[in-house]
Amino acid sequence: MKVTVLGSGTSSGVPVPTCRCEVCQSQDPKDRRLRASILVSQGDTRILIDCGPDFRYQALRAGIDKISAVFLTHIHFDHSAGLDDLRIYSYETPLPFYAEPRVARVLLEKYDYVFTKPYPGAPHIQLNTLLPAGESVLNPLELPETDYGFTIDRPLSATTGIAPAVDIPEPAEVRSHVVLPLYKVTVGSGADALEVLPIRLLHGQLPILGFRIGPLAYLTDCTYIPDSEWPKLEGVHTLILDALRWEPHRTHFSVSQALEVVARLKPQQTFFTHMSHNIGFHAEAEKRLPEGVHLAYDTLSFDI
Amino acid sequence: MKVTVLGSGTSSGVPVPTCRCEVCQSQDPKDRRLRASILVSQGDTRILIDCGPDFRYQALRAGIDKISAVFLTHIHFDHSAGLDDLRIYSYETPLPFYAEPRVARVLLEKYDYVFTKPYPGAPHIQLNTLLPAGESVLNPLELPETDYGFTIDRPLSATTGIAPAVDIPEPAEVRSHVVLPLYKVTVGSGADALEVLPIRLLHGQLPILGFRIGPLAYLTDCTYIPDSEWPKLEGVHTLILDALRWEPHRTHFSVSQALEVVARLKPQQTFFTHMSHNIGFHAEAEKRLPEGVHLAYDTLSFDI
Repeated sequence: MKVTVLGSGTSSGVPVPTCRCEVCQSQDPKDRRLRASILVSQGDTRILIDCGPDFRYQALRAGIDKISAVFLTHIHFDHSAGLDDLRIYSYETPLPFYAEPRVARVLLEKYDYVFTKPYPGAPHIQLNTLLPAGESVLNPLELPETDYGFTIDRPLSATTGIAPAVDIPEPAEVRSHVVLPLYKVTVGSGADALEVLPIRLLHGQLPILGFRIGPLAYLTDCTYIPDSEWPKLEGVHTLILDALRWEPHRTHFSVSQALEVVARLKPQQTFFTHMSHNIGFHAEAEKRLPEGVHLAYDTLSFDI
Repeated sequence: MKVTVLGSGTSSGVPVPTCRCEVCQSQDPKDRRLRASILVSQGDTRILIDCGPDFRYQALRAGIDKISAVFLTHIHFDHSAGLDDLRIYSYETPLPFYAEPRVARVLLEKYDYVFTKPYPGAPHIQLNTLLPAGESVLNPLELPETDYGFTIDRPLSATTGIAPAVDIPEPAEVRSHVVLPLYKVTVGSGADALEVLPIRLLHGQLPILGFRIGPLAYLTDCTYIPDSEWPKLEGVHTLILDALRWEPHRTHFSVSQALEVVARLKPQQTFFTHMSHNIGFHAEAEKRLPEGVHLAYDTLSFDI
């Protein structure tokens, strides 16, 4: 399995336009951070996690030749605003896209020209919903059942494990389709299959998703990992984890908070992501971290 | 007055991700086109026209230090998707933003976290609406008066010329504010003032705006210029004009159609924009154009 960091920066990216701080003026490529996103590959399978405003540039830089599925951690601009640029990857077959119900609801609304009033040339996206095992759709997410085209046709609160994907009709029909929450998704097949397990995280007050994919856990935009989720992270080999800056923040782990997570999970290696210019120079910040813990940087790529 | 071309490419940009054509493989920087946008500067005044998904990168590349006002030609992704990245330019004072009513309506809806349910750190945008002189809001735009927080409080059909701008309340109150259409906008003051006149264009079947700013006309995404608009373009010195490719297209001028506009307006100089990879190599396409007509390219900058 190959992991490529497409972006390792916070919502504004680094450098911040107009900023004259020394980090934003740095000529070290590792101090230039696009919005947070990764690509996970196995053989012919390509999983994109998040699709922010830099997606086109990231796709060109990494030479992304195809995408098998996209997983969204949450709806915030820096994680979702590149959705339209997925169109190149969806001309031949609809692109499977996974988000939790509250996020899918917003996508259906905000990208009406993709889903409900399809515009020529818009991406062709097969929207599926995800929930961590054990959660129900109606509580705590409080989704209205009818407002946004969702019809939930089976009891969910007791459901765990794998629920089957449902083909989503053509965009014009999407408002009446049935969207079933999935608790675990297999992308690809045979030796190229990757199993993706959603992990519930809190990003400040906002429930969002992280993802476990085999030996990897990708936990961006995070201030709290609920008790229920720690067992899903057991034995993780490589952890990519939110660490915005050294100082505390309302909606992101600081470095010291992130190091507490590392101490509990004890992964073989950890890479911090979603960093702001306040993290300082990459080369200097690296020296302040314990063994096995690094700052991610854009274009970082490794096999695990 | 200084004009900088921030982007000269069509909706996918050039190169197109995954495309193996020779133009998309070109190493000539002039064959690398981000999404169409320009910056117009006079002294301390900076006008940004369109704010697509490449805006942050374009702002860094051009070293944009401030923005006085943003004008949107239309809502399509490649012209509006960078709105969130304006936040850096709106922390100190609200950023004046101009779009026609139908576009403002969609912005209020799709960027609820900016306008109606403000999220901490979201851009602070003062949204104003624009109509070409002589047009009314209710016909042909058929705006519902109540659905999206617009209240039109004066008869508009007979109104031409300058209507006063109305201060827009804090975002939380925006749903009850009054938005008056403006027919001409002056940005900046004294010697730095720039007057912006909206021009009605058709982009396929979609009514959109072009802009006349003194000696400059910027007409992107265009297949038709209504009779009423030609007088507003008289005497234009520099024309930046849609010319997607050599072959006809449903929603964009081809090169030959664009040359018909040039022949009628007779500007001193013309730069084509919004080009796809089908335009060919920049250097070769240039040779096929008549005197005074050029392809724009990203980073092109000139004084007029």
